[in-house]
Amino acid sequence: MMKLFYAPGTCALAPHILLEEIGRPFEAVRLDFTANEQRSAAYLELNPRGRVPLLVTEQGSLRENVAISLYLADLEPARGLLPSDPWRRAQAISVMSWMSGTVHGQAFAGWFRAARFTDDPAAQETVKAKGRADALAHLAEMDAMLAGKTWFTDERFTAADPMFMILRRWGIRIGLDVSPFKALAAHSERLAARPAVARVLEREGIRFDA
Amino acid sequence: MMKLFYAPGTCALAPHILLEEIGRPFEAVRLDFTANEQRSAAYLELNPRGRVPLLVTEQGSLRENVAISLYLADLEPARGLLPSDPWRRAQAISVMSWMSGTVHGQAFAGWFRAARFTDDPAAQETVKAKGRADALAHLAEMDAMLAGKTWFTDERFTAADPMFMILRRWGIRIGLDVSPFKALAAHSERLAARPAVARVLEREGIRFDA
Repeated sequence: MMKLFYAPGTCALAPHILLEEIGRPFEAVRLDFTANEQRSAAYLELNPRGRVPLLVTEQGSLRENVAISLYLADLEPARGLLPSDPWRRAQAISVMSWMSGTVHGQAFAGWFRAARFTDDPAAQETVKAKGRADALAHLAEMDAMLAGKTWFTDERFTAADPMFMILRRWGIRIGLDVSPFKALAAHSERLAARPAVARVLEREGIRFDA
Repeated sequence: MMKLFYAPGTCALAPHILLEEIGRPFEAVRLDFTANEQRSAAYLELNPRGRVPLLVTEQGSLRENVAISLYLADLEPARGLLPSDPWRRAQAISVMSWMSGTVHGQAFAGWFRAARFTDDPAAQETVKAKGRADALAHLAEMDAMLAGKTWFTDERFTAADPMFMILRRWGIRIGLDVSPFKALAAHSERLAARPAVARVLEREGIRFDA
């Protein structure tokens, strides 16, 4: 059985949702970041980077949100969790890569993990400020991407969709005014209404909008 | 005909190599970063983010290094530019995503583009220092990944390989001591010896090791 290591509300929520959507049995293993469990010896043995998500299968372990999401989507092609058309598939992977690398890895990481970018406490404050401002600009861009659409692509839910909700939720949690982003809000509501997503939010003990 | 917008020596070198490897006709369009051509009105119309690589096809334009690389690799499955086994394919995508998001997007971007992370000039100096130190640690990890191997995966060249050479080259250019990383060096030499790679290096006007 596949195991997903996650911490509630992190970007691991994306593969967690996909595992539930594909309908294969899996075990969700919760790490408590407030107790620094991602730095425990047992976990570092599994993932020396001390990050989530981590997917463990009979074949070994797999890191990186986008890689795990694509792997899970391709496990069950009949579910259509990635567009079958190569160009649309590429566009889905492009937005996943941007949300993961730029929106999460640069902007939100600047706010949440400024120590990744500088050792100096005063400089960290400036990194946080820039990360927060950039996150807001990125959420505006994401809102525009969803304007007039039900899902990011193909009028159906795909592996590209969960990160839109996750990043909007982070925006809310760091106090950004997301109220202008109507398309993003409606998309998150649609996502949270999916039975698989509702189960995952309940398991993680979080709400999609707070 | 596909068009790739690139600037010499940037991460666009990865899809540039893949285009040459798959053997379809394409046009490589050079942007001069020293003249800030990536911020010209004409280019911003194509790519409002003002970045490279950008792939333009009859269907539109595609951004993000990993997305472009996977798209190109999948265009010609017979070339085997991604492992056909789903788990090995996922491992290749994982390392591509990590090199692009973390090694490039956090460490090297901290050095080359500190203004992305903070507006404060003094703080930028501390971001540069941390980026440089992290880049060295990541190159050590990449060297270990290649130890005893000819290519990253499957004993054959795949889409995961070019970024190893590109990031090592950046390390050399910012004055890091890459001499301990023997596996990485041997891998770059093998890569540069491929006819497709040699053509691309010549077109970009760069060397693989300087």
